[in-house]
Amino acid sequence: MTPAPAAAGRNTKSAVEGSRLGPKGFQAAGIACGIKATEGAKDLALIYSQAPAKVAGLFTTNRVKAAPVLATRRKVRRGICQALIVNSGNANACTGEQGLQDAEAMAHLTAGALHLPPQHVLVSSTGVIGHPLPMERIEQGIPSLVARLSPLGFPDAAEAIMTTDTRPKIITEKVAVDGDEITILGMAKGAGMIRPQLATMLAFLLTDARVATEALSDLLHEGARSTFHRITIDGDTSTNDMLLLMANGEASKRALHAQDRRFRPFQEALFKVMDHLALAIVRDGEGRTKVVKICVRGGKNSRAAERLAFRVAHSPLVKTAFFGQDPNWGRIMAAMGDAGIAFDPRKVSIFFDDIIVVEHGVHAPGAGEAQQRRVLQQEEFTVTIDLHAGSAEASILTTDLSTDYVRINASYRT
Amino acid sequence: MTPAPAAAGRNTKSAVEGSRLGPKGFQAAGIACGIKATEGAKDLALIYSQAPAKVAGLFTTNRVKAAPVLATRRKVRRGICQALIVNSGNANACTGEQGLQDAEAMAHLTAGALHLPPQHVLVSSTGVIGHPLPMERIEQGIPSLVARLSPLGFPDAAEAIMTTDTRPKIITEKVAVDGDEITILGMAKGAGMIRPQLATMLAFLLTDARVATEALSDLLHEGARSTFHRITIDGDTSTNDMLLLMANGEASKRALHAQDRRFRPFQEALFKVMDHLALAIVRDGEGRTKVVKICVRGGKNSRAAERLAFRVAHSPLVKTAFFGQDPNWGRIMAAMGDAGIAFDPRKVSIFFDDIIVVEHGVHAPGAGEAQQRRVLQQEEFTVTIDLHAGSAEASILTTDLSTDYVRINASYRT
Repeated sequence: MTPAPAAAGRNTKSAVEGSRLGPKGFQAAGIACGIKATEGAKDLALIYSQAPAKVAGLFTTNRVKAAPVLATRRKVRRGICQALIVNSGNANACTGEQGLQDAEAMAHLTAGALHLPPQHVLVSSTGVIGHPLPMERIEQGIPSLVARLSPLGFPDAAEAIMTTDTRPKIITEKVAVDGDEITILGMAKGAGMIRPQLATMLAFLLTDARVATEALSDLLHEGARSTFHRITIDGDTSTNDMLLLMANGEASKRALHAQDRRFRPFQEALFKVMDHLALAIVRDGEGRTKVVKICVRGGKNSRAAERLAFRVAHSPLVKTAFFGQDPNWGRIMAAMGDAGIAFDPRKVSIFFDDIIVVEHGVHAPGAGEAQQRRVLQQEEFTVTIDLHAGSAEASILTTDLSTDYVRINASYRT
Repeated sequence: MTPAPAAAGRNTKSAVEGSRLGPKGFQAAGIACGIKATEGAKDLALIYSQAPAKVAGLFTTNRVKAAPVLATRRKVRRGICQALIVNSGNANACTGEQGLQDAEAMAHLTAGALHLPPQHVLVSSTGVIGHPLPMERIEQGIPSLVARLSPLGFPDAAEAIMTTDTRPKIITEKVAVDGDEITILGMAKGAGMIRPQLATMLAFLLTDARVATEALSDLLHEGARSTFHRITIDGDTSTNDMLLLMANGEASKRALHAQDRRFRPFQEALFKVMDHLALAIVRDGEGRTKVVKICVRGGKNSRAAERLAFRVAHSPLVKTAFFGQDPNWGRIMAAMGDAGIAFDPRKVSIFFDDIIVVEHGVHAPGAGEAQQRRVLQQEEFTVTIDLHAGSAEASILTTDLSTDYVRINASYRT
């Protein structure tokens, strides 16, 4: 059983990865410039729009913000950009004044090569924290990166933003809006340090739709609420999280407004892309062997339901039980009790997929452990927790905690 | 380098495990009665005082409280007890009305065999959640448990309360108070699901001192604040945590009052025992290869310092870096930024033991990675984080997150 996508009612399974062609007027490239230790591993990506694009962004809530986050957030506030340069292998975080200068230098060098004003070039970084960017390599890489810009360059760019990801995450959706064929392309990287809340990992959404400025930011927030904000791998929030939406209007005759009837299909297509990427990030979670949807329902309010769901999803003991395929529901109850949320344990029901496991807070009569174990042996399943206290609910997607997660992160830099 | 004990100024290293004899008037026993799956594994413990003892307790803050926690908390409020029966292998948690009846039945059966009023018999359980207690085995076990009561039975009892612990945790301290030779014996079990805050794991403290009722509870709270409340393994808080202090007065001519000059040496000896057990629990943390003291200093207030220390200690990425012996301080900064506490990243210093690693929020000039790595290669070390924002500080002890932690917890019930 595949968990329903984070946002109910939309099916990411049908989201085909689409044609390699990006939205009209956008080009991209990805190259290896030697930031990553692995010979030939792509680590520098560029996205370019032939026309200035409107842009909205969400950024990490971590109080320790990487230099590119500070630089790009300032530029996004102005609402216009035309290029985005991203490096992997180095987060340019906790790098002080030098880091801010380096982030600006990356933008300036790219702006110079593309003949753009530097304030229209955004910067993003991901990788290890605390090391200065190897600016010489980036400087040497930028000209060949620009030379490779192509409408077919998106898969290369998606590969160049990867860190511990095992595969690139990229998707294209097409939607007809009022006679215009609109394309939306999304790419993202995970795969650990994923505990969104307001922003998340790196995810870049590009569209050739023309969207009214005020609508763009609303769209991004609303879409994130049911997608990127509802996934978690290990509960750690990165210093570099960044979610950007760029709309260059190249395929639209008229701007889309939130009030328009025509707005709806565009919004749906965009949310589908966001959904797909969010699920792809969880599916590629570090060392994961399971994708688990934690659904809390019957809550007094959705905030409480969400907090309970996240507490369960972050419990190392719950996550290791998932890894062990052990229907140890007591750990779920214990994690819930530790969420700082009032609920009556005697009213709680718990289901593994549609198998009832707990009723009135105790082992459900007749619940067979073999049946429960079969659910947990699947690669993807849903844990539903009913509080029987109201009508609010919240769902999040998470992974198990495996020996491989530990191995990957114990040797991340070596 | 050994981390200083959680409470500064006291050295648990010198705490010898003491004689096998317990405090005057106390006896104990531990037997295998078949609750644990492993043949012959001890799983039922009894502690008995020949005279009624004053008792104080701290209990789990988890909203899902096991039946023995509810039963014993009620009895402890009355302040008097004479026996404590403990089983491992089954938590008697999330067992509903039946669980409460079983906890009471355990107390009644023990009271009957010892000719005590049932309200003077406390009950404690630890183990897997959600399964009914095998009452028949317990009932059969109690007579032989009572028959084995002995002033030399404490090591058996300490063994019988273990779950994933690799060794029993028991210590005896002697202190002369006003001509009386007072003995304090402590035993505890870990080794996962340890995130105290108000109560923790199972820990039982017995003394033959006579302590004024009001002082007993104050002592327990104060001692826990700098010991059991300052350790964390995985951030999960159990449904069964219980910390009890029993004082039967058998070695004291006069009651000790908090105002007494004579009170001080007794308090120090008791805190030494608590310190020793807290450190022993961390040292025996599930799958741990490291014991790490996280010390946050220069904070605006101690609450904020403590919250930062716990956030760092709970970060899976920080913990896996410790396991990998990787001086990846960026993860420490990222975890701090995610604690919900205001601080200026540009003022932060970080030390591994006495090696400076971060200064003004960036890589300290001249800090050699080889040197840092050598600190992390030790079994025990200290990470000191200075916020340079005030004079408050907080220290906690934690472990790394290893592949063995995952293995132990993935197969806990199998």
